[in-house]
Amino acid sequence: MMKLSRLLQSRNLLSGKLLYGKSGDVKDASCLHAFTIHAGISTSGVNSAAKGYAAQRIFASYSVFKGKAALSVTPVLPTFTKLDSGSLVVDRRGVMMFKFLPAIGERKYDNEKRQMIALSVTEVGSLISLGPQDSCDIFHDPSMKSSNAGQVRKSLSIKPHADAVVNNILKTKEYFTVPVTTAEFSVMKTACSFALPHILGWGRLTNQLPRGTEGQPSKVDSQLLDLEWDK
Amino acid sequence: MMKLSRLLQSRNLLSGKLLYGKSGDVKDASCLHAFTIHAGISTSGVNSAAKGYAAQRIFASYSVFKGKAALSVTPVLPTFTKLDSGSLVVDRRGVMMFKFLPAIGERKYDNEKRQMIALSVTEVGSLISLGPQDSCDIFHDPSMKSSNAGQVRKSLSIKPHADAVVNNILKTKEYFTVPVTTAEFSVMKTACSFALPHILGWGRLTNQLPRGTEGQPSKVDSQLLDLEWDK
Amino acid sequence: MMKLSRLLQSRNLLSGKLLYGKSGDVKDASCLHAFTIHAGISTSGVNSAAKGYAAQRIFASYSVFKGKAALSVTPVLPTFTKLDSGSLVVDRRGVMMFKFLPAIGERKYDNEKRQMIALSVTEVGSLISLGPQDSCDIFHDPSMKSSNAGQVRKSLSIKPHADAVVNNILKTKEYFTVPVTTAEFSVMKTACSFALPHILGWGRLTNQLPRGTEGQPSKVDSQLLDLEWDK
Amino acid sequence: MMKLSRLLQSRNLLSGKLLYGKSGDVKDASCLHAFTIHAGISTSGVNSAAKGYAAQRIFASYSVFKGKAALSVTPVLPTFTKLDSGSLVVDRRGVMMFKFLPAIGERKYDNEKRQMIALSVTEVGSLISLGPQDSCDIFHDPSMKSSNAGQVRKSLSIKPHADAVVNNILKTKEYFTVPVTTAEFSVMKTACSFALPHILGWGRLTNQLPRGTEGQPSKVDSQLLDLEWDK
Repeated sequence: MMKLSRLLQSRNLLSGKLLYGKSGDVKDASCLHAFTIHAGISTSGVNSAAKGYAAQRIFASYSVFKGKAALSVTPVLPTFTKLDSGSLVVDRRGVMMFKFLPAIGERKYDNEKRQMIALSVTEVGSLISLGPQDSCDIFHDPSMKSSNAGQVRKSLSIKPHADAVVNNILKTKEYFTVPVTTAEFSVMKTACSFALPHILGWGRLTNQLPRGTEGQPSKVDSQLLDLEWDK
Repeated sequence: MMKLSRLLQSRNLLSGKLLYGKSGDVKDASCLHAFTIHAGISTSGVNSAAKGYAAQRIFASYSVFKGKAALSVTPVLPTFTKLDSGSLVVDRRGVMMFKFLPAIGERKYDNEKRQMIALSVTEVGSLISLGPQDSCDIFHDPSMKSSNAGQVRKSLSIKPHADAVVNNILKTKEYFTVPVTTAEFSVMKTACSFALPHILGWGRLTNQLPRGTEGQPSKVDSQLLDLEWDK
Repeated sequence: MMKLSRLLQSRNLLSGKLLYGKSGDVKDASCLHAFTIHAGISTSGVNSAAKGYAAQRIFASYSVFKGKAALSVTPVLPTFTKLDSGSLVVDRRGVMMFKFLPAIGERKYDNEKRQMIALSVTEVGSLISLGPQDSCDIFHDPSMKSSNAGQVRKSLSIKPHADAVVNNILKTKEYFTVPVTTAEFSVMKTACSFALPHILGWGRLTNQLPRGTEGQPSKVDSQLLDLEWDK
Repeated sequence: MMKLSRLLQSRNLLSGKLLYGKSGDVKDASCLHAFTIHAGISTSGVNSAAKGYAAQRIFASYSVFKGKAALSVTPVLPTFTKLDSGSLVVDRRGVMMFKFLPAIGERKYDNEKRQMIALSVTEVGSLISLGPQDSCDIFHDPSMKSSNAGQVRKSLSIKPHADAVVNNILKTKEYFTVPVTTAEFSVMKTACSFALPHILGWGRLTNQLPRGTEGQPSKVDSQLLDLEWDK
């Protein structure tokens, strides 16, 4: 039987002055966390990341604020390019952006030192298929295309509570550890499952006006399907 | 094996004169309830709540009407504020509003004495992750920011049927007990799972027109992702 | 281990001349059905039902065609009424319409003798929460508000394959028995789960333009939430 | 406990020059695949298929690139025809298109030799209901309406990893074997579950403007529902 009362009670008893986020999200990190999300990131360039985010058009992330760090999760949709034929093709893949902020005091987080890791759709697939005893480790190599390729620089680990240990093997400069409750992980899985087809671009497919609505069935599709069914 | 026949039969045999709701929703509370939702709320100010709701633009709640009280559940979307940069940022978080009405006769409910509790997205996460034997307790402190902070005033308990007892510890003035069937709880979980990303504001992200549609891939996103992938 | 090969093969080997539906949907009813859906309906008035459907604006049902009958499932959205205040309120609840057509020959179905049963959102909740060994029985009394109230006239039973028996107790004139495979029932559950919030009207809530987008946060919602959080 | 680290690490260490697709999707096929998708297809006519696809309006598939072949999955929405009454009726059913490309070198795939199989909504239902130990086999007969009917020409098998064997019984000319990880299969199931109601056309039902919004409740629906409830 899940007992969430102590945790959820603390949610409302605590108030906070946050550099980032709202006090209503402050959680007591002392107990009952179902998973621990641990990130090790060694990039610099925070300011340009800040600019990148500042120019984004809609801010609506799911954030959890804990003792040592905060985590916010936001979907980033793919971009499309229009071909000469009028077709749209995915230009840059969508991702699920995980942003970490270190705590610099009681319920104060330093937005200037935030670090990000962008999960691909398949990595989101591994997150949403995690059972209560599963764990996964994701490694990104931001130097992938340079002479430093192969030197792991970013990692994201999601582990059941008992297994949450700092991964000392990674030579990362910055660590972020965010314990999450069953309820918070349920929000992440539900929201990421919702976002998954959209970061693939399928929301664009399904939101389009239906083809052939005005009594002109699409010849293209007939052609396409004839190929499969009629030969 | 689930046996819903008696319950669902009663759904149609009963007619009712409700102050609020439709007779088709009346249920026999005598048996087969999978969960009991119990709320203790001690606020006043019903009239202003009524005004708040009356001015809302769309009424479409999921309601269950039982012997002692009725419960209706409605998502309330977040509000956004436009920044000088043109970006939109969530201003007030979305919530899932649970509204309780006491019964004042056979299938009559008193809308004037209704009370509400607004569940945060994480509290919705705990509701939708409840297994058939799980329970959760949510406590809100409406005096959180005043000198009365710490005095619990609202509670919402969801418990398996056998555990449904009145929580006498809470010093609340009003109690609402609403037994719900497996089918009704399934509706709540499915509908709340649907609404969860929308109360986060992610529906606003995914419903927007795709960026870069006209052959102009968003430079902002390239910048953002370059940071993560290319360094 | 699920074996769908024989069944799915038959899907393509059979061609058919249907009065209603497409040959691609014809299934061999001989084996491997996970559930049996059995309906007993004693209403008349088929012609007016036909008119009702003919005037509907979009036809997009999920249909399964079996040896004795065909079943097609379609969501019917709620209707809204605009109040003087400008608010929208659900006028008539949405339903999931189950339509049955008797077979009148090999893969021929009689659309003139079709019968319908409209599932409420809670009844849809019982359908989508059915496990592989669960069953449910739904009874509607179309005479609910007349002097014949209490005389059951419509029933819908969903049972695991082994339990599929004709319910002789019901004094219904017409029976429809439609065995469905695991795959077909998975389509029904997935499609009905998708439709559930929409027949509640929540799709209308989430598709609306966000409130406060132009820097004018909704005062109404602030009022509503202040009530819950700040008192 | 799932161990994805080696696999996901390889994702970023590998770069590639693909004829089709992006290097970020390249996976090491050596281990940890939860399912194997095996297709045997004997049609010709690749060029017309290419034309069919080239004229399609939106390209946004989920692709996995493996050692012997690549697989990309895309929903194809139904087409609607407008009747004289103004109603829309599904003209051609939506499908989930599975496209296979053979590898012709290290991380090079030959788009000219691609083959496709279009899954019906019920076949998608069997895919999304597969448990970790389930398998399914889908056979299509592209000659269904000709004198060659009954001669199976296309097959799609999804099997747990240990069972992945080439099906030598089928007299197909071309084989494609694509091992997929748990995370990749989770993406396929989540994305196909999202797409399922849309390939049924239900997205068109739910995205429509609500009926009766301007205080004019639809008479048609009242008629339809009266039939069910009031008789």
